[in-house]
Formats: sequence, C-alpha cells, structure tokens
Amino acid sequence: MMHRSSTIFQSLQRCSLPASSSGRRFYASKKRPSTQSRKSTVDALTKYLENEPQHPKLVSNSFPGPKSEEILSKLSGLMDTRHMIASMDVSSSYGNFLADADGNMFLDVNTLTSSLLCGYNNPVLTSLAEKTSQAMKSDYVNRPNLFGSYPTAQSVEYMENVLMRLRPEGMDRLVICRDPIDTAQRMAILRQKRKLHQPTREDLSTYSSSLIETADASDLPVIARFQYKSNPLLTGILPLPQDYRQLFSPHPTIQFPRLRYPLPVFSEKNREEETRCLEETRDLLKKDTRIAAIIIQPVLIDRHASADFYKQLRQITMEEDVLMIVDEQQTAGGLSGSFYAHTQWELPTPPDIVVFNNQLQGSGFFHRDGLRVPHPYRLALTDHVSAWQLSTVLDIIEDNDLLTKVRKAGVKVRDGLYQLEQQYPDLIHQSRGLGAFCAVTCSTDTICNSIIESMQNQGIMVGRAGSASKTILVRPMLIFGDRHADMFLERFGLALEKELANYGD
Amino acid sequence: MMHRSSTIFQSLQRCSLPASSSGRRFYASKKRPSTQSRKSTVDALTKYLENEPQHPKLVSNSFPGPKSEEILSKLSGLMDTRHMIASMDVSSSYGNFLADADGNMFLDVNTLTSSLLCGYNNPVLTSLAEKTSQAMKSDYVNRPNLFGSYPTAQSVEYMENVLMRLRPEGMDRLVICRDPIDTAQRMAILRQKRKLHQPTREDLSTYSSSLIETADASDLPVIARFQYKSNPLLTGILPLPQDYRQLFSPHPTIQFPRLRYPLPVFSEKNREEETRCLEETRDLLKKDTRIAAIIIQPVLIDRHASADFYKQLRQITMEEDVLMIVDEQQTAGGLSGSFYAHTQWELPTPPDIVVFNNQLQGSGFFHRDGLRVPHPYRLALTDHVSAWQLSTVLDIIEDNDLLTKVRKAGVKVRDGLYQLEQQYPDLIHQSRGLGAFCAVTCSTDTICNSIIESMQNQGIMVGRAGSASKTILVRPMLIFGDRHADMFLERFGLALEKELANYGD
Repeated sequence: MMHRSSTIFQSLQRCSLPASSSGRRFYASKKRPSTQSRKSTVDALTKYLENEPQHPKLVSNSFPGPKSEEILSKLSGLMDTRHMIASMDVSSSYGNFLADADGNMFLDVNTLTSSLLCGYNNPVLTSLAEKTSQAMKSDYVNRPNLFGSYPTAQSVEYMENVLMRLRPEGMDRLVICRDPIDTAQRMAILRQKRKLHQPTREDLSTYSSSLIETADASDLPVIARFQYKSNPLLTGILPLPQDYRQLFSPHPTIQFPRLRYPLPVFSEKNREEETRCLEETRDLLKKDTRIAAIIIQPVLIDRHASADFYKQLRQITMEEDVLMIVDEQQTAGGLSGSFYAHTQWELPTPPDIVVFNNQLQGSGFFHRDGLRVPHPYRLALTDHVSAWQLSTVLDIIEDNDLLTKVRKAGVKVRDGLYQLEQQYPDLIHQSRGLGAFCAVTCSTDTICNSIIESMQNQGIMVGRAGSASKTILVRPMLIFGDRHADMFLERFGLALEKELANYGD
Repeated sequence: MMHRSSTIFQSLQRCSLPASSSGRRFYASKKRPSTQSRKSTVDALTKYLENEPQHPKLVSNSFPGPKSEEILSKLSGLMDTRHMIASMDVSSSYGNFLADADGNMFLDVNTLTSSLLCGYNNPVLTSLAEKTSQAMKSDYVNRPNLFGSYPTAQSVEYMENVLMRLRPEGMDRLVICRDPIDTAQRMAILRQKRKLHQPTREDLSTYSSSLIETADASDLPVIARFQYKSNPLLTGILPLPQDYRQLFSPHPTIQFPRLRYPLPVFSEKNREEETRCLEETRDLLKKDTRIAAIIIQPVLIDRHASADFYKQLRQITMEEDVLMIVDEQQTAGGLSGSFYAHTQWELPTPPDIVVFNNQLQGSGFFHRDGLRVPHPYRLALTDHVSAWQLSTVLDIIEDNDLLTKVRKAGVKVRDGLYQLEQQYPDLIHQSRGLGAFCAVTCSTDTICNSIIESMQNQGIMVGRAGSASKTILVRPMLIFGDRHADMFLERFGLALEKELANYGD
C-alpha cells in the first residue's frame, strides 16, 4: 500500500512561491533515514562554505596549463578531446571551486547537467560515504539494481523514504529507466494507438502479420514539439538527443513564442505573440489526430514564455485529449528556484508526465495514474549508495533552505547582467533566467569566445549553450550564494570592459 | 603519442581460435597495474569456485516466496513490477548462484545483459574494492568523469593500461558515450552527408537557413538493418531501443538469411539462402545511395549466419563504400567464446565500427582511423573505481583462461540441448548458440512459460528472449563451467519430461 502524505516536493514548491518562503517541512514518511542530526547538517554546510577559497586562484601562465595540455594531448592519441577543457584535480576541488591539474582554482558556474548539486567534496556526503563504504563495495562488485529484475530488501525503504519525497503533486506513478524521454513517448504513443484502435506491439499475437503490414506508417501516432521560427534544424529547447532524431521522423512542430525584451516594455506585444502560438497549437491538435503528446522543457536556451502561456497550453492539451510531457532532465533538483521548474507555472491540473535525469541520481519519469506503462526497454541501474546519497542531498537542500538562497543569488546575477547589458549594448543582450539558471546572448560568435576565454583567465568557468551558440550560460550548484554572484559579476564586468577596448580597435 | 603494441584482445582472439588455445599473453603496456600477483588471482578464483554451493537450494514452498511477494507488492504501489522476478539477497549470492530474500539459492544462467562477468561477490573484485575504497568514496561524492570535460590524472593511465587492451584489431580510435549506437549512426550519417555534398549541422553557420529548409528530407542519409521475412515490426536482431524508433523512420531493411537446422543436413540450401540475401544487400546498396551504414549484431535471437556470410558482407560494404557497424552491446566481454564475437568471422578487413556497452563497465565504440567523429551528445560517466575494476576483470579472464573454459561449457550445453531436442521434438527445437550464449525454441508460448517456471522450481534461473518470444535463453557468467552445464541440463531434462506428461494429457 502506498502511504499518501505530503511530499518534500510540496514543501519545496510552497517555499518556491514568494508568499510563503519560510514554508514548513513535510515528509513522505515519519520513518526518515538520516545520517546526521538535522542541526549537524546545517553546521557542517556552514563550516564547509566558510572554508571555501576567498577568490579564484590562477598559478599557471596560460590556460589550459602545461599539465592539462600534456594529459589532453596523450588522450587525443585514442579519442576525440574537443569537448575537454582541462584536467581536473578532484581531491583539491572544494565547494563551488574546481581545482585543475596545474593548481589553478576556478569558480565553477558551468556544472553541465547540474548533476552535482551540493558542491565538490561536500563533508555531509563524504561522511555518508564513510558510513556506507561496505554497501559501496558490494555495489561495485555485484552491481545490484534496486528496481531491476531482482529488487533488494532496501528497495522498499528507498521507495518510501526517498522516491515518495520526490513525487511532484498529482503524479502517483514512477517509471525508472535509462531513456526516460523515449519511454515516456512510447507510453504516449501506446495510449494514442489504443485511442485510434490501431494494433499495438502487445496485441501482435492476436493480429495477423498481414494486417500490420498494411498499416499505413503515415497514420502512426506522433509527438509534437516546439520549434524556432527561423531554423528548422534547431528546436527551441536545450539541445537533447531527440532533437537529432527528429530530423528523420515526421513529428510535427509548433512555433514557440518569440518574446521581446525587456519584458515590461513589450508586455502587450508579447501577450499577442503567446496567443498566436497557442492558437496555432490548438489548430494543429484539432487537425492532426495522430498527435499523442506535446513535449516541453521549462528552461530554454534562447526563449521563454510566461506562466500564463503554460497554463493555457495545459488547458488546450486537456481539451484536445493530448498528453503534456514536461522534460525536466536539466531542471529537476532545484536550480530553477523550485525543486521542479514546472511548478512555478502553478498549473491547476499537473502535467501528465514529468521526466527527470541524473541530477536525481537516476533517470525516469513520474506520471499520473491511469496511463498504461509499456515495459521500459532499458532499466536504469539504481545502486544502494546512490540511493542513500540522494536522500542526504534532499536533507541538505531542505535543512539549509538552499532553494531560497539560490533564488536570491539568481536574482542578483540577473540584475547584474541586466545592468551590464545596458552598459555594453553592442556586446551582450537579452539577459534572462529562472532561479539560478541565467543566460545572456553575445552579439557575435567571436565576442562570445573571447568573453569565455577572458572569464577563464580570471578564474571563472562559464558555459556556452552548444558549440554553435552565442549564448553564455550560468549554471552553478545549489550552494552558489551572494558572494559567488558578486565574484562572477565583477569579473564579467571586467571581461566586457576589456572586450569593448578590443571591439573599439 | 599512442603506444602501438599487441593488445589483450589479440591474445584473446588468438586463444579463441582452435589452433592455438594456449596462446601467449600480450599486453598493451609494460607498466601494468595489478592488485594481485597473477598466481594469487588464479588461486583466489579456484578457491572461490570450490566453495560454491553444490546444488541449487529451495526452501520456500512457492516461488516467488512470501518475502519476495511482499516486497514486490509494496513496490507496485509506486511502479510497474511486471519485469521483477524476485527480491535478491545480494550479500548471500555467490559465484554462479543468486540468493533470494526467502533463502532460496538459484543457479543463475540469466544474467541479462551479461554485465557481471566474473560472478557474485568475486573475492578478487572484493579485494580490489577494499584497496580502492578511498577513490570509491570520492567517486560517489564528486562524480568525476575520466573522459568528460575535465579528465583527471588517472585518465591517461586508464587509457594506456585498460582501454588499449580492449582495442579490437584495426580499430585505433575510441568514442565513449552514453548512446553508442545512436552516436555511431550519427558518425556514419555525417560521413555520408559529406559524400553526398549535403550541408551538415557543423556547416550551419556558412549555409543560409533557406537552403537547409528546402533540403528534401527523403534525400537524407539512412542506416540499413537486417529484418525478418515474416514480421515487419521485428528486426532479426536482439531487441534494442533503436528497433522501436525504426518504426517511425524510413530506414531500409534487408532480409536476413533464414537457415534450416540441423545445419549439416541443409548445408547446400543454406548456402543458397545466404547468397540470395547477400545479392539483395548488394542490389540495395547500389540502388539506394542514401545508405550510410549497415548495422549487424553477431548473436541473434532466432537466426544465425555463417562466418562466410559476414566475410562476403564485409566485402560488399567495402565495394559499395558503406560502413559496417557491428553492435556488440550484448556480446562484448567473452561469453561468445571470444572477447568480441565478431572476431570469430575472421574478417580479412575489420569492421569500421564496433559498439560495446555496460559489460565493459562503460559504453562507447571503437572505430577505424579516418572517420570523422561528431561530438557525442551524451558522454558516459566513467568513474575511477569502475575503471580499475575493468582492469581486474580482464586480468581474471586472462589468468584463468576463462574464455576457453566457457567455450567448453557452451559446447556441452549445446550438445545436451541437441540431444534433448531429438528426445522431445514436440516440445523444443532449433537448439543453437555461440560460445556460452545458447538458445532453444519451444513449440508454443504455453510450453515456454511452463518450462521456465519448472526450471525456477528446480532452482535454475533461465531467461526468455523478450516477453512475446518462445525462445529460452542461456546467458551465464564467464565462470560457468562443466559442473554448472551438467546441473542445468539434468534439470532441463526433468522439466521436459514433466512437460511431456502434461502435454500428453
């Protein structure tokens, strides 16, 4: 039997809303494993952050330094190293700071898929690792899977104490799998096939193969996605594998609103633009009955839409009986300022499916009851120690009120970027963000490259949104605070000043 | 600089050929990390196997037993449990034997994707885990990636001492990524686009978007696959994710030979059948210039072809300038009797790309030099301890000559299955296999279910090839020996005897 109770998600969601940011805590279960008393978790994190380096530190004459260069050059003997930035010194990295092989120390605001939420060598997690080292050894040697063919005695405990805490409101079922977006799409397609009375793979034995052979491929269910206006090769979402596949499949696309910034100046025009896209969506769903679902991501690289847009989108999907899949693979975990980014839309009816990935120590999706689950074709390996680690990560987030803090730091970064955008309009524009996900677009590729290099030379690791993009991304950890925001902004200002001098030449 | 030298692969390949099964050892590097002296690895494994249970042991009155039932029932409150078999007791599992929560002990010949090559609680790996527990803790806390944006100082050592040992002959480059089949296909498609002078994503900045918009989707490169004759929804290969996607994409398929068994009786007819399929392949490749590559898997569920077929296929792909991708996601690691199954074809020119997956503690592909690598879109996480573990697994395989032993056990299983097939022709047929991958097909679904249940009730975990299949799979670990083969065959005989009695009713 499932224990129905409030989840950490609900408390996280609550404290993500301005009105009640001091929200009380709710737990999914009274029996709650914790490796630390709650107070000591707070003390440990405070001390940890106090001992962080005061500033980035650069000791090599160039970046990457000679030791990194040597390692990258050797690796290039067997593999492509174009994505490699520098060689890392794992044991010397600390908090928000990444140490490299040459002894440089960088403020890391480029944590890729945000899979490390609580910082390098976090003492609470190190202490957990000490306590669970026997289980760790067994996990390595035996590779048991908590939710594979042979669940273990700890599977239930983990489900009740951790997975139930993660549950978004209105999502009562969970699928753990390695390709969550693909499996979620299969679920939607299976549902649509039944709606359209088409034979499914599971019906195979009862249908003759000739029937299936004659089924017209153009009638098969499809998934709709949002798309940029200008470029058919890029969807308006963060670059994910399915974008590529889309090239070869007939999935229909919908225009995503193209808002104008700053938002307060263009509020009327922007509302019209959103309405236009919503009408297009409704028309498409009415016309194309093959559409099984719409996939959306809450944080896009170059676009965003209002909460009102998503509320109306939800309404349309419900009226047209099409599933709404929210892809939180890059946003679950709190960096958006709420544990799941989509909760900031405050939808009256939750989405049908919410997909998460590695930042929650595993991949899968929650879905509302009543959807039929196809067998996931590749189960994700969930090991015991990662499970306990996720439990502790949730404790750290909650005990230390990290979501409130990271939202505050995010506001600081965005305000700072907006000021810099006013000051250097020829270099950067369109500063934007959600929680601590922040971004700003450069006028040219060259300027973007030059700013990123200049930031690295000042000890700040920033990211860019794909190799062909002019957008600079700030994607820090949840322990990114005011102090780090100042550090980042000061150096970003210097980089722009230097760039303007070059640009003036 | 890359050290060119013989690899363990070459020695493994050599000892996989009958002529020189006592083959000498070759190493990729003189500096070779080992946590045990070679002799103690052999002693440890011998003692380990001596202490295995003599027989399966069943103590619960039913299977799954009450404790397993309780755990599965609780888990069903949140997730689908249809794929779950029983609850496992990890610490009591040992060697080839899987312990469940009710104290039952099963001979496990259903190791799924064969990711655990050397047995449960293998003492050599446990000892490695003790010695590397500090690194293990750091891996858990910091999740460094040996080949991500920030390789570590150990990345080079691992590449030189482990990855170079894995290198198949003629494959000088490696890509480590999370979706190796997808990335390999992208590599082939990118190459084909350049051949066809089509704009690639990397050229985007130099092409106007209107040019790309007008590119006809039907001209885009495609990947060819082999297919069953009878059923367009199933390809002739082990069920893998891309099969599903294929439904929605225009990739062409080729008929795979349908050989008749027993092979010696039908050798003439089978040769004709293979020639027919090869001619079809050549015609398709000549006609359809979009085809960038052919994907094949060396072990299929319900089919197989001769080494000669693959030799000629390789010749055709080279003549038509199409890449040959060998998908060893389920076969790399030695269970086929050679470290990579495709080496048993003894191709004069190696394939262009060889894909591996989790049984090598990571996923990716080797490819020949000269192919241009697109950026892998999702890097696979390679942690330090898994890396060392793979190194030790290779030591265990080599020191104990496990490939020779597992080939011998495989022959025993196949001979036994063939005898049983003669004895019970109404129940099973078409026994087949490669190395220790063995399979036999049941006459009906009901018989298949009943035999699997009967085997479980005798303490043997066997697998089936997908939920809609009538094929029983034997996919043990590399420490599966003669003793275990006897244990399996004796009980399989009893299951058939019992089934015949039911069937006679």
